[in-house]
Amino acid sequence: MVVLGSTGSIGVNTLSVAKRFGLHVQALVAGSNVTLLNEQIKIFHPSIVCVGDKSLVKSVNHPHVLYGNEGIIEILETTPSQLVLNALVGFLGLAPSIKTLALGKKLALANKESLVVAGALLDKKNIVPVDSEHFGLWYLQNTRKIHKMTIMASGGAFRDTPLSELASQSVADALKHPNWSMGKKITIDSATMTNKLFELLEARWLFDVTNLDALIEPRSLIHAMIEFADGCSTLQMANADMKLPIAYALLGRIDELVLPHVDLVDIGSFAFKKIESNRYPIWEIKDDLLANPQRGVVVNAANEVAIELFLAGKCNILELVALTKKAFKKFEDVNPTSLQEIFDIDAEVRKYCKNPQ
Amino acid sequence: MVVLGSTGSIGVNTLSVAKRFGLHVQALVAGSNVTLLNEQIKIFHPSIVCVGDKSLVKSVNHPHVLYGNEGIIEILETTPSQLVLNALVGFLGLAPSIKTLALGKKLALANKESLVVAGALLDKKNIVPVDSEHFGLWYLQNTRKIHKMTIMASGGAFRDTPLSELASQSVADALKHPNWSMGKKITIDSATMTNKLFELLEARWLFDVTNLDALIEPRSLIHAMIEFADGCSTLQMANADMKLPIAYALLGRIDELVLPHVDLVDIGSFAFKKIESNRYPIWEIKDDLLANPQRGVVVNAANEVAIELFLAGKCNILELVALTKKAFKKFEDVNPTSLQEIFDIDAEVRKYCKNPQ
Repeated sequence: MVVLGSTGSIGVNTLSVAKRFGLHVQALVAGSNVTLLNEQIKIFHPSIVCVGDKSLVKSVNHPHVLYGNEGIIEILETTPSQLVLNALVGFLGLAPSIKTLALGKKLALANKESLVVAGALLDKKNIVPVDSEHFGLWYLQNTRKIHKMTIMASGGAFRDTPLSELASQSVADALKHPNWSMGKKITIDSATMTNKLFELLEARWLFDVTNLDALIEPRSLIHAMIEFADGCSTLQMANADMKLPIAYALLGRIDELVLPHVDLVDIGSFAFKKIESNRYPIWEIKDDLLANPQRGVVVNAANEVAIELFLAGKCNILELVALTKKAFKKFEDVNPTSLQEIFDIDAEVRKYCKNPQ
Repeated sequence: MVVLGSTGSIGVNTLSVAKRFGLHVQALVAGSNVTLLNEQIKIFHPSIVCVGDKSLVKSVNHPHVLYGNEGIIEILETTPSQLVLNALVGFLGLAPSIKTLALGKKLALANKESLVVAGALLDKKNIVPVDSEHFGLWYLQNTRKIHKMTIMASGGAFRDTPLSELASQSVADALKHPNWSMGKKITIDSATMTNKLFELLEARWLFDVTNLDALIEPRSLIHAMIEFADGCSTLQMANADMKLPIAYALLGRIDELVLPHVDLVDIGSFAFKKIESNRYPIWEIKDDLLANPQRGVVVNAANEVAIELFLAGKCNILELVALTKKAFKKFEDVNPTSLQEIFDIDAEVRKYCKNPQ
């Protein structure tokens, strides 16, 4: 397979699963962590690798090193592998997703933005989600009629922060996720609940279900719930470790233990809480966005710019979300009907967010 | 269909489901509640009915009334219906189960004792369970490899009673089930946890799984959990109402709302507790019984006699269980290989329990 984003947390877990199940890794694509990439090359012997920038190429211990977005596309076009795991972060993951699907390959998708911004235009039948919540929903699905799908949220770094102190939280505070160790962007998206909003959009496209919601389950052990039309609900529970969703995305069926089972007696209890808009103001646009999922491209572009501003110390966490919401309102009429329009809208929203009126 | 035990709680719920889904009720079998039976006759117009005793026949408003166990068997032999719901209580439900299966009819089984005492010898492929826990397990099943099945227990009437006060609890106390309104026998079996032991035995036969356990979930909203071989667990949740399991047992598939969904936000939290042998001493024989399921006939016969003694004020709840355990030890070598042997052992155990050495 091809692993896009091999040195991030999903990439590392993917290679761990590949090793355990003896999957061949044909190509590795990383950003700037050349030290880890070189270790991965020694273990997995890929035929070709790619890094984020030309300046890094000479530090990579491999005879065949490409770089940049063009390098990724070249790898996809030339690889004999029929499986691509896309764990790139942000909008830049979209072009490789489009290319993978256009080539008729199976896309194990951890790049949320692909579906968030272009779900309407991608062919979902070759996409398998790499995400604990969507894996949970997929796992619970059967042939019964579905009433509603619910995914669980940890609540992120600020779930217990006094509301009056939200505005004064630092970048370091936002990066302290209570349950998962992940990259910066997704950890901040968890703190604002934007991550969960994106996951609802992804679920909408993956499962063709519009009755969707999220709840806070602070332990991150229950990941998904389906309420069936008959009145029954089922819940999916597993320890918080991406190896299980990844193993299923890569292999389709698993008959051996990937993670230890959750012990209900050890756990003792579960609590569930509503997601409140006063703590997570992005939640105010949830219904509007789910009713108009084509506006995902706007929310994503604005959010990416706003996160950069937050990481640079130029806004606080509430201003981050306020900027995203402002762009969502400003661009309420967008309705892209082609992938090119999505790239154009993305650029326009980013430009606006750098100097919003 | 034929409804055996139409005036008990399962029978009443079954007729409610039959009415909603327009199922034809060909025969009604009741015990002694002729008043309710007469009301049911007016609504469902069965072709034939049966009551527990000859003396009751003249009070039944129907031209074709049979009585007793022979009446039940005659109904089964002559009915054109291919579906029999057996909600009889106790060992006396076994003979109708055997007859139903021998006639090749589908058996919707709420009579626990049939599988508890004769699971090894009954043909399970025509049995559908009518029980919230087994329905939950059935609902969660799929083609994935199963590691373990767990059913939930309410904890019964004495789950919060100080241990030192267990021996002094009255019959009336034992009949106060916290979550379900059911018949006397099953309510007392819930107080002692014998009901859950029986359900584990049933699950063993219904699903051919030997890794089985039960946990206390005091709200009775989560009914079953399956731990799959991969490390995932799924849980089935529904409001405590038998109409849903019954509707599935009768119809096989349901695409409309039978019960309102459980609202996780309203519920707020779930707790799970181990079943402790100091509160539920019957639990000490669980592993032994599951390893030797053919000894279910002993536990059931002793328990039925012990419950009669308890209801008559001749023993307390701890002595009730102690008698069952004593018989379980006394008859440890039983291994019936025919239905006739089961009836013989049942009689022998009952005789012993009335005058135990």
